[in-house]
Amino acid sequence: MARLRSITPGYYRIELPEPLSDSTHGTITHFELITVRLVDADGREGVGYTYTVGRNGAAVASVLAEIAEIAAGEEANDVERLWHRLWWALHYGGRGGATVFAISAFDIALWDLKAVRADLPLWRLLGGYDARVPVYAGGIDLDLPLDALLRQTDGNLAKGFRAIKMKVGRPRLHEDAERVKAMRAHLGPDIPLMADANMRWSVDEAIRAARAFRDADLTWLEEPTIPDDPAGHARIVREGGVPIAAGENLRSLWEFKLYIAGGGVTFPEPDVTNCGGVTPFMKIAHLAEAFNLPVTSHGAHDVTVHLLAACPNRSYLEAHGFGLDRYIAEPLRIEEGVAVAPERPGHGIAFDWRGLEALRE
Amino acid sequence: MARLRSITPGYYRIELPEPLSDSTHGTITHFELITVRLVDADGREGVGYTYTVGRNGAAVASVLAEIAEIAAGEEANDVERLWHRLWWALHYGGRGGATVFAISAFDIALWDLKAVRADLPLWRLLGGYDARVPVYAGGIDLDLPLDALLRQTDGNLAKGFRAIKMKVGRPRLHEDAERVKAMRAHLGPDIPLMADANMRWSVDEAIRAARAFRDADLTWLEEPTIPDDPAGHARIVREGGVPIAAGENLRSLWEFKLYIAGGGVTFPEPDVTNCGGVTPFMKIAHLAEAFNLPVTSHGAHDVTVHLLAACPNRSYLEAHGFGLDRYIAEPLRIEEGVAVAPERPGHGIAFDWRGLEALRE
Ligand SMILES: [Mg+2]
Ligand SMILES: [Mg+2]
Repeated sequence: MARLRSITPGYYRIELPEPLSDSTHGTITHFELITVRLVDADGREGVGYTYTVGRNGAAVASVLAEIAEIAAGEEANDVERLWHRLWWALHYGGRGGATVFAISAFDIALWDLKAVRADLPLWRLLGGYDARVPVYAGGIDLDLPLDALLRQTDGNLAKGFRAIKMKVGRPRLHEDAERVKAMRAHLGPDIPLMADANMRWSVDEAIRAARAFRDADLTWLEEPTIPDDPAGHARIVREGGVPIAAGENLRSLWEFKLYIAGGGVTFPEPDVTNCGGVTPFMKIAHLAEAFNLPVTSHGAHDVTVHLLAACPNRSYLEAHGFGLDRYIAEPLRIEEGVAVAPERPGHGIAFDWRGLEALRE
Repeated sequence: MARLRSITPGYYRIELPEPLSDSTHGTITHFELITVRLVDADGREGVGYTYTVGRNGAAVASVLAEIAEIAAGEEANDVERLWHRLWWALHYGGRGGATVFAISAFDIALWDLKAVRADLPLWRLLGGYDARVPVYAGGIDLDLPLDALLRQTDGNLAKGFRAIKMKVGRPRLHEDAERVKAMRAHLGPDIPLMADANMRWSVDEAIRAARAFRDADLTWLEEPTIPDDPAGHARIVREGGVPIAAGENLRSLWEFKLYIAGGGVTFPEPDVTNCGGVTPFMKIAHLAEAFNLPVTSHGAHDVTVHLLAACPNRSYLEAHGFGLDRYIAEPLRIEEGVAVAPERPGHGIAFDWRGLEALRE
């Protein structure tokens, strides 16, 4: 048994090496990292985290402090029971938002602890399918001039990536179309290419854009419109002629169900740090499998590589650009288009707590 | 013009005179009140607030501090622009949860200020339909023994209420059925009766319960199952044979659209303190009108009486039991089953700031 002896949140502000931009969030100068460290009665440790793009982080940290109170002394192995206890204890004012980010971080820490105790890497604890997961480089590059975009892409290819995602959603559609076309010409026909609109368009603008990109053979078009419109997404899937990825702004298994069962998504794309954690992420992946759909991911590649390595229907893992790697002992290994889930027990992420200390909020 | 000169959040813990209980939140011992006070360049004031049932309040207060930063110096009259600016600035980590509670409080304050500046009561500023709004007493009384439940009801009738809502969702359905039957016998045939299950049941349990209550002539059965299942609600509406109220746990216009357009609700029930504020509340009410549905409400009756007084399709206003009245100068007037929207400018709620000071978190 593994009673929780301590639950310790942390809240840090991480400046980006250079500002990033997409069609919705404007310029992003820093992100907020919110961590939680668990120690059980045997002294074994589990670590979880979530992040924001610069807002709401203090709210997440404050909910984690409430979770520390609610879950104190509980049995860490009983993840489903704890997850439901927290979901309902925090439901009014929760059910999404800061609360589900906090629950996500805590749930990741519980699974890490469980895997550490079992002396298994998380991907094997969760089932074990294939440690080698196809990966793509997710650029946050909407405002990069075209030549800088192509140089960035060459850099990613040199790092071992063999699939690339670029941002779209510029003021004029013809600019997007030209950039996508130039990127495809630069990559040649063999490198998968995705495009991400970050919720920029109306449904009909999205259909028009999907058609404008048809010749570029996109693997998917991501978040064409707001995450609040499953029926609109279903129209885009049917009429746009390009597969659709969505999910980084969905906050529960039930929201994914609306999209997956409603024909509103081709590549469900949960983020383990905001969909409620490992527990719902795996359910979403399995729901996708039942609907004969691949599952991809958003953010937190170091944790997520384990989850996709446990899923037979896993598609590409996103490797994101937030530069958390500076504070992690052994960053994710990329080899010829594949990310390799580590064999260390748990998720195997060792934070540089001393380095982070200077960034504490 | 009315540039915002100051935006001041407040966060208070209010103990309940006696603990309340329902089928989901268990025993509620206190609630959290989060306020925001605006002053514009002319020195005119607007006040908004939201509340929780005991959790997530610090997160709401922390998001309000971010809103104060984002909205500083903005034109207070441009509510739609400000609402969208905040929704998107806080979207990642927001889109519900603590963030939409904070936006709700701020939006209420903006509308209060606008009405104060126009020297109009809020209900007339919003359109003006009828200041006299049918009202019901919402008991939070699941664990009250039957005789205490009936005594509480007599007290509410003596206060002027002519419609009563009771909690259901006890461990055994026959207990609920007996209590509902006894309440109907106690009230006679002329007093409208509602029952609120607070998300307790599965879809089929809810249908079974709705059928078990059929002879009690319920005006509605409220929140029969989780707010994440619009299709399940549509089945309950179709198969249960009793009108369904839902919405206190929906967090956007778009979520209400899923229920209203999907046949999942008979009485949409937004809460102005958590649906995003006055701005989305009125859109939800108008959406309901377009679908030929009445609109009711949850919580914050002092603000909400104005909103329903502006809606031709208004149904009953909920008068809730949190006892905020102790800290308000002129509590809502109830007369023979009707709540009367005041003629004071704005929403006309004057908080006892001095009294609240002792309860500051
Ligand atoms: Mg994306
Ligand atoms: Mg209710």
